[in-house]
Amino acid sequence: MDNLFEKTLKSTTVYDGKVLHILVDDVELPNGRTSKREIVVHQGGVCVAALDENNNLYFVRQFRYPYKEVVLELPAGKLEMGQTPLENGKRELLEETGCVGYNFISLGQMYPSPGYTGEIIHLYACRIKSKDKQQLDEDEFLTVEKIPIEKAMELILNNQLPDGKSQIAILKLHALLKSGKI
Amino acid sequence: MDNLFEKTLKSTTVYDGKVLHILVDDVELPNGRTSKREIVVHQGGVCVAALDENNNLYFVRQFRYPYKEVVLELPAGKLEMGQTPLENGKRELLEETGCVGYNFISLGQMYPSPGYTGEIIHLYACRIKSKDKQQLDEDEFLTVEKIPIEKAMELILNNQLPDGKSQIAILKLHALLKSGKI
Repeated sequence: MDNLFEKTLKSTTVYDGKVLHILVDDVELPNGRTSKREIVVHQGGVCVAALDENNNLYFVRQFRYPYKEVVLELPAGKLEMGQTPLENGKRELLEETGCVGYNFISLGQMYPSPGYTGEIIHLYACRIKSKDKQQLDEDEFLTVEKIPIEKAMELILNNQLPDGKSQIAILKLHALLKSGKI
Repeated sequence: MDNLFEKTLKSTTVYDGKVLHILVDDVELPNGRTSKREIVVHQGGVCVAALDENNNLYFVRQFRYPYKEVVLELPAGKLEMGQTPLENGKRELLEETGCVGYNFISLGQMYPSPGYTGEIIHLYACRIKSKDKQQLDEDEFLTVEKIPIEKAMELILNNQLPDGKSQIAILKLHALLKSGKI
């Protein structure tokens, strides 16, 4: 598949913000012609499917500005420097829901939209050991909700839970639980 | 959940490219303070899980510049104006793989990364009626590959198929087939 490779000729930063860093690169295509690639450089993210003893999943609802709507999602966040993806997952779970997790397993990675963003979202599942208080940033607003995993599967299969990372983590966790692999 | 709402105070285009349109908006938070939101405005996408008579799925492999690697994905693409999402799905499937689909069903929508992009990816499944030639753009390079759906599920559950839209479409299609709902 070497013949699919695109070679970078020049890379230009066109926006360097707090969250988004946008590059426009000149590339050489496999046929020798040149083209431009507009891409988002992103530090990566993490998402955790946390199950309590009754197989309820912890969710958060928050206003997602790009959609101008409140979106139901598993606890998640951007990766912070100096922490492994798993440490980031434990931190986000605690901050957003107050849950302390254990028995963490990896549910792999997700490329959210590989045409234009290099973000990698690391997915985990865990059980909940204990419950503390939310530790939100001053300007972070979200509500926490418990939903049984079977009900969450219904929401997904009825196309009522659009968030990508949450769909993947729940579908994979459910399949692994059903197959007895975890 | 009205108390989660963020009000737009000002919207500024900081990059207006061919694919990416980047806004930085000033918003009023639920606590009355102000903040900035950096977002990608995107025309949306479509992805199709197409099954042949032996339950093989059609995949494409293409170089994804943001990751600098060749990525295995279901046929997919950006929405074009003047076509419904389903029409776009039929077009992308035909262009990328040469397959003509029938019995299309919706597998819902996916929000790839709701913190910063407003993209909606529409997901479909179908059967394959007939096979024609690929109809790629002059500067589009990809290879086509058939993989049995059970093997694709294995790749996903073993964390070897990171593309988000493909994971969701295959996991949902597999769950619906197993449950006898389709």
